[in-house]
This record gives sequence, structure tokens and C-alpha cells, in this order.
Amino acid sequence: MIFSSKLVEDAVREFSRLPGIGKKTALRMVLQLLRMHESEVDEFTGAVSRMRHGIRFCKECHNVSDSEVCGICVNPGRNRGQICVVETIRDVIAIESTQQYSGLYHVLGGILSPIDGIGPEQLQIGSLRERVKSTGGAVEVIMALSPTIEGDTTVYYIARQLKDLPATITTIARGISFGGELEYADEMTLARSIAKRLPIENYVTIQGT
Amino acid sequence: MIFSSKLVEDAVREFSRLPGIGKKTALRMVLQLLRMHESEVDEFTGAVSRMRHGIRFCKECHNVSDSEVCGICVNPGRNRGQICVVETIRDVIAIESTQQYSGLYHVLGGILSPIDGIGPEQLQIGSLRERVKSTGGAVEVIMALSPTIEGDTTVYYIARQLKDLPATITTIARGISFGGELEYADEMTLARSIAKRLPIENYVTIQGT
Repeated sequence: MIFSSKLVEDAVREFSRLPGIGKKTALRMVLQLLRMHESEVDEFTGAVSRMRHGIRFCKECHNVSDSEVCGICVNPGRNRGQICVVETIRDVIAIESTQQYSGLYHVLGGILSPIDGIGPEQLQIGSLRERVKSTGGAVEVIMALSPTIEGDTTVYYIARQLKDLPATITTIARGISFGGELEYADEMTLARSIAKRLPIENYVTIQGT
Repeated sequence: MIFSSKLVEDAVREFSRLPGIGKKTALRMVLQLLRMHESEVDEFTGAVSRMRHGIRFCKECHNVSDSEVCGICVNPGRNRGQICVVETIRDVIAIESTQQYSGLYHVLGGILSPIDGIGPEQLQIGSLRERVKSTGGAVEVIMALSPTIEGDTTVYYIARQLKDLPATITTIARGISFGGELEYADEMTLARSIAKRLPIENYVTIQGT
């Protein structure tokens, strides 16, 4: 692509560094920014800059936070007896958006993957143990990791790390998605969902559906 | 979507104002920016900010430019006897990227579209007439507009505006795309490409293909 403006070329190059953004999409965004008022573009760059420089990671749960401890960890309304273990902050946003969980979180920062060189030291597993220990009373640790070999390995590893502590380890239910069609489910999911079938009184209705 | 950080929320909202970017894609970009080094994010916001504040529109051809007159208009190597009329700066980039055209451009800023309230006054048609007039000698005006009703209307309107001047008006060839399959071409395109068939010696080979 040949640009007649170095300024446009630089902006397009910067945008194409973002995930899933090719040169053409980057150009479309840049042209949109050109059409926007200067003050709007200042708001855009200001928000990005403030975020990157101002962001902190909660020292309790390692979620993104505007302060030392995140809004979820300081909220007195949250159930301190539940810690939901997730891979990334994106999972926290996904679970929060369901508005069905009122406990705390623990962001691991990934899952165990020897092929990618990610071992227990690269993840927030040690701090999870400390957290469960310092809680004193019984705590439920809900594992909400990817349904993959690596995810399952991580679940078992963490369960072993916590086995001397008064923690109940649970994992989120696996099965056929709501609205999913049986014939298109993969064999593994279908087999598991038959093996882990539920009595009808346990078939919980979610609020708002 | 519920974010635990106002900073992240603000950045996601700003990104979702860009074309084709929903909340989820915006979040993916924001999380990528969080993973990048602070100095890289400063480069990103700096490039966007410098572009928006520094960009100018060439007073000759209305293309984006880093100075009063764009690099194409000041280039002594370009053929001053050809002016290619396009709708947007994106078209200039597309044609420049073919490296097959060495004349000048004229960016209209859109095409005539009474439904959208775009008349001749909203477009750079008056300045095109002035430009052709001031050239003095004969000039070829190449119309490279969208192959739509509005595009054709604009071509005829401009041709009428220039008819007392020593300008030859041409339009880019319409026909079957290179690599396109005949059976999938629409009837209009196919009919036109048969009607406007070329003797084989006019079947130009493009450099580099």
C-alpha cells in the first residue's frame, strides 16, 4: 500500500499491530479518525494513554484495577467464601456480565502449557494457595478454566496444591450449550453430558432467562 | 459487559466508536494494548494524535497531505496532462498501489447523491473545473468513480461542466475482473463487457503480472 502522507502511513502501521487488524482495516479506522473532530480523537488517544499508564493489577486477585485492590475484592457485598479461578481478565468480564456470580476471582494469567514454556511459576498459583490459606475458614475454589487438556491439567495441579487446606474444589459444569443442537456437539462433550446427567430438580433455572 | 476497571471501560468505549468494531473486538484490542510496553502504547497514541492534528488536505487535489500541496502534486515526475478523478483518498491509495498510473489526482470527497443530500456544492467539482482551466493546454480527465447509478450520474455531470474546456474525458474500463469467473458476473457487467469487447492488440498486459 502506497500512502501519500507519512502521518497516515504511521497511524496505519500502528493500528496494524493490534490483533486481527490488517492494513485495509487499519486504513478504514484511520480514515474514520480523520473524519472525527480533533477533540474526539484527543479523547480517544487520551483514554488509551490514561488506561495504559494508570492501570494496575489487583494485589489480591490479579484482575485489572484502577487502584491497588480491585472493585470486586473491596466490595463488602461479595461472598468471600468463593474464589473463582480464571485464566485471564477477559474471563472475569465474561462471568461478571452474566450477573450470576457474587464471589471473588483469582486470575492465573494463563494455564499450564509445557509446550509454550508455561509452568506453575509463570502463573499465580502460589498466591492462590496463600490466599486460600489466609482466609482461615472453609472456602470454595471454583475452577473456570478452558475445557482443554491444558485446562484439565491445571485444574488437577491446583487441586493437588490445595489439598491440605480446608478448600472445596469445584469446576464449572460442562455440557451442551444453551441453544446448541445435539447433533452438532462434539463426541467428547456429548459423552460427558450423558455421563454427568442431572436429576430434573437440579436443573437450575437462571434468573432472567 | 461489566468491567472492573473504569480505565479499561473508557478505552473499550472509545475503540467501539471505530467502524466495524464491536465491544468484544474493542476489548481484544484494549487487552493487547495492556500487554504492550508503555512506550509502545505511547507510540501508538502519538502517531494517531500527530496524524489528526498534523494532517492537511492538498489545496490542489484535496488528497491527504503532510504539507500544503501533496507529494503527488509537487512531484515533477508526474504527468500533468492527466487528472484522475476519484471519490475518496482511499481510491488514491488503491490506484497508487497498482504503480500503473503516473498522472495527478482530484479527490471529489464523494459522489452526487440527492437522496443523501449530496449535490455539486458538497463536492470538489468547481475546483476541478478551475484546475482544468488553469492548466491551459489539453488535459485528460480520467473518471475513476464507483460503477453505480450515482457514479455514472457524477461522470455525466462533470463531463457537462467541462465541455467548453480543452479536456478529454475518459472513464476507467468496466468488465470482468481479473481472475473472476464468467458465470458469477452480474448480467449488467457481462452485457457491457461483451458490448465493449476489444480487439486482441488492445488487450494490454500490465507490468508485473
